[in-house]
Amino acid sequence: MQTLASDPLTAQHLKLAIDAVLRVRSRQPRIHCITNAVAQNFTANVLLAVGAIPSMTVAPDEIADFVAGADALLVNLGTLDRERREAVEIAVTQAVNARRPWVLDPVFVDRSPPRAQFARILTARSPAALRLNAAEFAAVAAVAAGEATADRFALDQRCVVALSGAIDIVTDGARSAKIENGDALMARVTAMGCAGTALVAACLAVEADRWLAALGALLAFALAGECAAARARGPGSLAVEILDALANLDRETLLTRARVS
Amino acid sequence: MQTLASDPLTAQHLKLAIDAVLRVRSRQPRIHCITNAVAQNFTANVLLAVGAIPSMTVAPDEIADFVAGADALLVNLGTLDRERREAVEIAVTQAVNARRPWVLDPVFVDRSPPRAQFARILTARSPAALRLNAAEFAAVAAVAAGEATADRFALDQRCVVALSGAIDIVTDGARSAKIENGDALMARVTAMGCAGTALVAACLAVEADRWLAALGALLAFALAGECAAARARGPGSLAVEILDALANLDRETLLTRARVS
Amino acid sequence: MQTLASDPLTAQHLKLAIDAVLRVRSRQPRIHCITNAVAQNFTANVLLAVGAIPSMTVAPDEIADFVAGADALLVNLGTLDRERREAVEIAVTQAVNARRPWVLDPVFVDRSPPRAQFARILTARSPAALRLNAAEFAAVAAVAAGEATADRFALDQRCVVALSGAIDIVTDGARSAKIENGDALMARVTAMGCAGTALVAACLAVEADRWLAALGALLAFALAGECAAARARGPGSLAVEILDALANLDRETLLTRARVS
Repeated sequence: MQTLASDPLTAQHLKLAIDAVLRVRSRQPRIHCITNAVAQNFTANVLLAVGAIPSMTVAPDEIADFVAGADALLVNLGTLDRERREAVEIAVTQAVNARRPWVLDPVFVDRSPPRAQFARILTARSPAALRLNAAEFAAVAAVAAGEATADRFALDQRCVVALSGAIDIVTDGARSAKIENGDALMARVTAMGCAGTALVAACLAVEADRWLAALGALLAFALAGECAAARARGPGSLAVEILDALANLDRETLLTRARVS
Repeated sequence: MQTLASDPLTAQHLKLAIDAVLRVRSRQPRIHCITNAVAQNFTANVLLAVGAIPSMTVAPDEIADFVAGADALLVNLGTLDRERREAVEIAVTQAVNARRPWVLDPVFVDRSPPRAQFARILTARSPAALRLNAAEFAAVAAVAAGEATADRFALDQRCVVALSGAIDIVTDGARSAKIENGDALMARVTAMGCAGTALVAACLAVEADRWLAALGALLAFALAGECAAARARGPGSLAVEILDALANLDRETLLTRARVS
Repeated sequence: MQTLASDPLTAQHLKLAIDAVLRVRSRQPRIHCITNAVAQNFTANVLLAVGAIPSMTVAPDEIADFVAGADALLVNLGTLDRERREAVEIAVTQAVNARRPWVLDPVFVDRSPPRAQFARILTARSPAALRLNAAEFAAVAAVAAGEATADRFALDQRCVVALSGAIDIVTDGARSAKIENGDALMARVTAMGCAGTALVAACLAVEADRWLAALGALLAFALAGECAAARARGPGSLAVEILDALANLDRETLLTRARVS
């Protein structure tokens, strides 16, 4: 597997990525979310906190209307029951036909072979971005996760790959960034990753450069988590504080506290 | 469209509406809720905070038993999948036959024509109250929302219309009240409106005058939101604070801080 | 109905039960949860707070894979739709065949005869523990709840019975303990009982003595609720505080503040 050269992250990239996040607040894009039952409430609250307008139905009868009226689509494969699976097919077709960006979060594909297979089929249907952890990447890409393999996969699939971990990697194959913000306590709150992916969808709705959109979203989310953790006494208060932090993030905090390379 | 004269809101009305809210705490009515997947948890917590006992199943096999044992029914059309739709039919039939009050919240009917059609069918089945925003009202009533059209619609349908917005309007066609309490931050928390409608159902369970019940519920909810916003640092803490505020609301706060006309 | 003699609770039992709770943090067992739609988010957060790793799908296509990869299974009968019911059958079969402990929480069986019948069938399929309140016990066991009847039922069914109330009773028929910790405000937050049962599943995953596991779990949960109530201003902040308290519980607090006999 060949290691692809990546452009160094410039200050200008960082500025543009932050612009994308703040544009969500002014533009208020509609984000339709097919997400798992555990994450629905928190995801809706994360989107509202950053200024987006979420809708969350997974009913096959209604989903096409909702996606048609949305600016971006989130597809999260958690709690993948029959109705959700059916809804995903309709929603992705609608999004692709209407040229709306959509993002895939293949939760726990390493735990369920049928879910992994479904994720691979979806990956071929032009998601703007994939967000997943190392184990999920290995199940989707059939290679071990790493910076080089993520670059290659992004290039082959023509999508952004956002690989989450202690350090997040965001790559489109040509450009790659590492985000060192965040806090270990975030892993002790359910649906954190799912909600972060929803933020990627919100940024994709207002920023045509998909790599900048994903970078801005994951940076904002990690930094909000870091601010929240500084105030929290445990995972319960962290979940509350991160919503407050997302609603209150400003350009200066994002610029001065970003640890991105 | 004719403007109907409305009785001015008297101090006695306000007192009776507040009585209804506080009676929920002493009577602990059972409220069965068919509500969307995003709102289920927060709605149950709002009902528990005011002293009601929620049940939330949407399984068609069980719904009749639960509605039969309940004192009021909430029907919210968010995330309207097949099972929920089927459950709504059974539940409304059971409620109407058993003369239990039921309230309809036609969430996002302006975004989905099939959902709007279903809402119109349900509106003809004698809900005690309808709670919706201006866009949803336009989709259900097929006229633009306003005080006069809400009055007329309430009179025609023989139900209370609670029209939510920066100022809430509660009308039964003969009597109309405006509630100016509340806080803009409430719109940044998902399921706020849905939970407010659940509170209407709780008050309907303990107050035969449906207009007083709806008025008391929406006043209490808006005032709790106002108290919560005074303590909150963002939407995350607002959601927590509103539950605490609802549990701690007392007659004096309701009477002295109500901005109702 | 004969009253069975129970061993007195020794200090050694208490120490071992507390060991089981703390072992969850070091072992991080995987707990698969089939639970109701209202409780999914809070249950996942409770499990993460104590150090376990939850998964929550109820899709029949995936459930066997998830249970096969889990260390214990939670079956909660709330919002028992068709898909959940089908998932329960598959999951319990998988758990029994793989000799994984599973715990049953027959929520609201007193409100729905078909649900009660399903609970009786499941009780015959060797759950390690049953957690339920007095009304639910009466519906499952067809006798009124009490210490003697709980002992007898546990002995007959060869499972632990954890009877929740103002005082919790945990019995395997031979040994019985009463837990007096907790706070009345816990009843004003939805899914509290459901999440407590999930903690029983987590302790069963790391402790072979099922009675000790259930005792440790319910003690930790009640004590966390007590600590949380001391800081909370109402049910909203209680839900947040209990997650923080669970994550921060230590051996000394558990030992010194336990009111168990």
